[in-house]
Amino acid sequence: MSKIRSIIDRMREGQDIGLDRNIHNNRQRTINPDGSFNIKKVTGKIIGNVNPYHWIITISWTKYWIVILSFYIGMNISFATFYYFIGIEQLSGLIGDTIFVQWLNCFFFSVQCFTTVGFGGIHPIGVSANFVAAFESFAGLMTFAISTGSLYGRFSRPISRIKYSENILIAPYKEGTGMQFIVASELSSALMEMEATVNVSWNDTNDKGLPIRKFQQVKLEIDKIAMFPMSWVINHPIDEESVLYNRSIEEIKAIRLEVFILLKGFDDVFSQIIYNRHEFVAEDFVWGAKFSKPFYVDESGKIILDLSKVGAYEFVQMSK
Amino acid sequence: MSKIRSIIDRMREGQDIGLDRNIHNNRQRTINPDGSFNIKKVTGKIIGNVNPYHWIITISWTKYWIVILSFYIGMNISFATFYYFIGIEQLSGLIGDTIFVQWLNCFFFSVQCFTTVGFGGIHPIGVSANFVAAFESFAGLMTFAISTGSLYGRFSRPISRIKYSENILIAPYKEGTGMQFIVASELSSALMEMEATVNVSWNDTNDKGLPIRKFQQVKLEIDKIAMFPMSWVINHPIDEESVLYNRSIEEIKAIRLEVFILLKGFDDVFSQIIYNRHEFVAEDFVWGAKFSKPFYVDESGKIILDLSKVGAYEFVQMSK
Amino acid sequence: MSKIRSIIDRMREGQDIGLDRNIHNNRQRTINPDGSFNIKKVTGKIIGNVNPYHWIITISWTKYWIVILSFYIGMNISFATFYYFIGIEQLSGLIGDTIFVQWLNCFFFSVQCFTTVGFGGIHPIGVSANFVAAFESFAGLMTFAISTGSLYGRFSRPISRIKYSENILIAPYKEGTGMQFIVASELSSALMEMEATVNVSWNDTNDKGLPIRKFQQVKLEIDKIAMFPMSWVINHPIDEESVLYNRSIEEIKAIRLEVFILLKGFDDVFSQIIYNRHEFVAEDFVWGAKFSKPFYVDESGKIILDLSKVGAYEFVQMSK
Amino acid sequence: MSKIRSIIDRMREGQDIGLDRNIHNNRQRTINPDGSFNIKKVTGKIIGNVNPYHWIITISWTKYWIVILSFYIGMNISFATFYYFIGIEQLSGLIGDTIFVQWLNCFFFSVQCFTTVGFGGIHPIGVSANFVAAFESFAGLMTFAISTGSLYGRFSRPISRIKYSENILIAPYKEGTGMQFIVASELSSALMEMEATVNVSWNDTNDKGLPIRKFQQVKLEIDKIAMFPMSWVINHPIDEESVLYNRSIEEIKAIRLEVFILLKGFDDVFSQIIYNRHEFVAEDFVWGAKFSKPFYVDESGKIILDLSKVGAYEFVQMSK
Repeated sequence: MSKIRSIIDRMREGQDIGLDRNIHNNRQRTINPDGSFNIKKVTGKIIGNVNPYHWIITISWTKYWIVILSFYIGMNISFATFYYFIGIEQLSGLIGDTIFVQWLNCFFFSVQCFTTVGFGGIHPIGVSANFVAAFESFAGLMTFAISTGSLYGRFSRPISRIKYSENILIAPYKEGTGMQFIVASELSSALMEMEATVNVSWNDTNDKGLPIRKFQQVKLEIDKIAMFPMSWVINHPIDEESVLYNRSIEEIKAIRLEVFILLKGFDDVFSQIIYNRHEFVAEDFVWGAKFSKPFYVDESGKIILDLSKVGAYEFVQMSK
Repeated sequence: MSKIRSIIDRMREGQDIGLDRNIHNNRQRTINPDGSFNIKKVTGKIIGNVNPYHWIITISWTKYWIVILSFYIGMNISFATFYYFIGIEQLSGLIGDTIFVQWLNCFFFSVQCFTTVGFGGIHPIGVSANFVAAFESFAGLMTFAISTGSLYGRFSRPISRIKYSENILIAPYKEGTGMQFIVASELSSALMEMEATVNVSWNDTNDKGLPIRKFQQVKLEIDKIAMFPMSWVINHPIDEESVLYNRSIEEIKAIRLEVFILLKGFDDVFSQIIYNRHEFVAEDFVWGAKFSKPFYVDESGKIILDLSKVGAYEFVQMSK
Repeated sequence: MSKIRSIIDRMREGQDIGLDRNIHNNRQRTINPDGSFNIKKVTGKIIGNVNPYHWIITISWTKYWIVILSFYIGMNISFATFYYFIGIEQLSGLIGDTIFVQWLNCFFFSVQCFTTVGFGGIHPIGVSANFVAAFESFAGLMTFAISTGSLYGRFSRPISRIKYSENILIAPYKEGTGMQFIVASELSSALMEMEATVNVSWNDTNDKGLPIRKFQQVKLEIDKIAMFPMSWVINHPIDEESVLYNRSIEEIKAIRLEVFILLKGFDDVFSQIIYNRHEFVAEDFVWGAKFSKPFYVDESGKIILDLSKVGAYEFVQMSK
Repeated sequence: MSKIRSIIDRMREGQDIGLDRNIHNNRQRTINPDGSFNIKKVTGKIIGNVNPYHWIITISWTKYWIVILSFYIGMNISFATFYYFIGIEQLSGLIGDTIFVQWLNCFFFSVQCFTTVGFGGIHPIGVSANFVAAFESFAGLMTFAISTGSLYGRFSRPISRIKYSENILIAPYKEGTGMQFIVASELSSALMEMEATVNVSWNDTNDKGLPIRKFQQVKLEIDKIAMFPMSWVINHPIDEESVLYNRSIEEIKAIRLEVFILLKGFDDVFSQIIYNRHEFVAEDFVWGAKFSKPFYVDESGKIILDLSKVGAYEFVQMSK
């Protein structure tokens, strides 16, 4: 048993693990295909569980640009209106026949101040306008610290583009069988010191005979590799302790077996630890097959890893 | 016994642990509710133990803005005075009938230089003013590096918004009892590889019969979980080795039992290890209760964690 | 056996390790001299495995400047053309007799807007040009966030300049022999808590007598040191378990022995974990020699490490 | 024996550890009082072992500002000369009767372009000057990325301000004695999960009777604490295995005993692992004393740690 006692171990002790032990036939998968948890948190407070940095880093790019541009435009509308009410005679060079054009020029002046572009075609001459401009250029610099920082933060955020096989195989292993899936890093850089933790859950009954969902962390043949330049077949040797022991593919589906994977490694481009989560469901199981090698050596002697072949498998003869 | 020997273990050896072993009836709590230590450090030197970065990152937002704005205004007042004494004839476009208005325009010019907005309505023409302006725009860029950097540093600083139950329960566990509290992450993202270390301290007597405060790191049923998407009931099974063994709630209060918690995990939005500290005091104990589940599955099959229910408990029958 | 089970361990179990087990006589080395992997990843998709941040951080400096400058020029050409079609009468101060000079001035205005330098010699007066300029200065700030961020990211990226001996020695060790190489940090700062993992691979036959490439993680006398201020002779004591046991230099070459090294440490200037990979091939082996000390104490009592002496060795008498 | 095998362990095996095993009577201390290593690295190449980022982050503040300002001035001198030779008629608004004043105005224009302040009092009108200005504003932005980035990098670089006692004591411990020193964090924030590794070295003879310097990692009563809010007395219980066993203070000086300390912890303001090194020499030893408590509880019940008292000790009666 690995030293890392998981969510699954806890279940065996009969304790509350935070995951629901009741069986819901319509329950959705716990981990989304993108690795995020399919769990919603609610709270009495309206914005109770939102950290601004978490939020700005994790929203979609579309939402991100809407937020940043709205803020940029909103700020300038506010300052423009402010300048307008101070009086356009305090902005030298400002022209415009109608109120709207005058306000619009205030807006353009505001933009030039906020971004510190400061053409000077329009520039403040009155004391009030000058004070507001002094504050606006300060506010602009501080605001863009958040805008540009969060943009670069999103750009440089460590990610782990791991390709998983679509299927999880029951393959021959030594005298018995093993549960196997294959992973490969899609990024050109290598990950270091990859660790895998694999848990399974299934429908069972508790000691009072009531239906319950059980959890188990499964043993892996290898749970850590020093480097991860290519692909890695993660193999759970199925022995007597494994819930998969002597299970047919029909039984696996009947007990709604799920496999939860946590990969951890170090990306030496990002210089950061990265994590990757994945979930296989019972429908992903294939019995009596093994993965093909996704790599080959070309005529120059260079090793080629074909990512499109990661997950390809072939059926093999297997007793039982 | 966990491999992490703590502050508490040390006490058992009879050694100095840095925490006071004398009993003070009016002693304040050691860990504030926000997780900081309620300990003051003094030194002969005036600013002996202040690191500028530590300070600017940890002061309140109010203080932060006062500091940044004061510095911004102070720098510009200094440069304005400098320009004024160089002579306003070196600043083309500067107008003003009175000394104050002239100085004020020097201030506005300084701002436009310091922020690099540079409208040009006022611009330097003399050699001295030009040199000062050259230095000021350089100083402005370097100063804003600290201002904008610290702003983004504060914004993006890893935090661990962990919700703890208000109470700590003596709950039934197997044939005996356990000391239990519940935690949940308030942030929408999941924490990985959470570890918990729990220590208790209480009033006791040393081998000479003198009153002394003792410490103990308590065993946990589970001290590490692979993922922390939901809630976690941290449970200390009370056995003969535990100071809580056979203690009634009145005894717990009489010996002024305190519980110190250290949580550690990895936040994969911040890509950083985060720590969280918490302290329960004797008054927080509830005897003979267990926590309700703070989550449920909604009609669509999605798991919902209600943060406002984290810490809710119900009384249960318990022998003794 | 170290707790870190490596790529090599896996082979012993007879499993797929991601590295090719077939013997290719023309196979290139796996790890390039600069520490990168000599492995190519292909995918059906055109830009399938490129992460923009990974790419911009790891391309060569020449490529980097071409990309950044091209983008800078390209953006300004686009905006210049845009301003030109809006109409040059909306840009006050713009002069030019020919279309090309007019467009060129649009380009210069665009640059002044994009970089927020904003001289104002040319400045927008029309509504359309003002809107485009407002957007361009925003785009400029956001674009330079990526440009300057990636420049500083490249500049401050943790690196590990480790000097390896050119040769790997079979040296006397206690009653037998050891496989030894020497490493030193080329940087003036010290690395902390250095860990070494060493694996070897060689041509062998599997249990069916077919030629196969085998892997083994070798035992090290010391695999972790607390500080790394000077040089470190990493020594594999050759015992019966080692594939090198009783091998002559000719046999080492015949089985095409390769040595893979992974070093890990903490650089406290970068405040980051750093990794370093290296590969020795059979031709690098020298039999019956030991490394000279690359350091000495000068007349003032200071220790001097001469990096040019790291890897120097002298032949010694060795039985067998 | 701690799992971390150190520099000292290696010596016991009789291997090269990178530190010199010969005895030099005039040898300087290995670790400077500021924690850096007193070791010089030389190389055949002129700038062989300098990484620019390492260098800019670790040089003194005085050197740093000289470098940054020199670069700023040098760049502007270069561009000024460039503009001057292009022809001052391409810079509208440039005035000056003498060549020097004309060049000086080119310099001021260059500054306004390089910092993107762009007043516009002087602005480029010719094509050549415009192209140079377009390049200079780009260069300015990229250059300031390094300047401001390195300034903030220096400002926010994790540091570990640990106060060590001036002396290291032989104090009573249980039935025997212990080697003790006391440390405290000078920063107001707490460090987490502090680990200590302590090694000693001394003059001895090898198995051939030749003088040699030996190393030993000593056992600590406690080598890890969960939190470090106050002070920590690090205690090495002197048993038969310790080189200090039954040594008088005269013997300690005669064998030139040295103590090397490596502390490691996590600073949750910097969100970084920090290391701290220290060396005690034989002259720092005091026999028969113990440290006073450097903290007290004030009238309000708050714990006060007096950093000026860290290291204060009192003599105690000790047998032998």
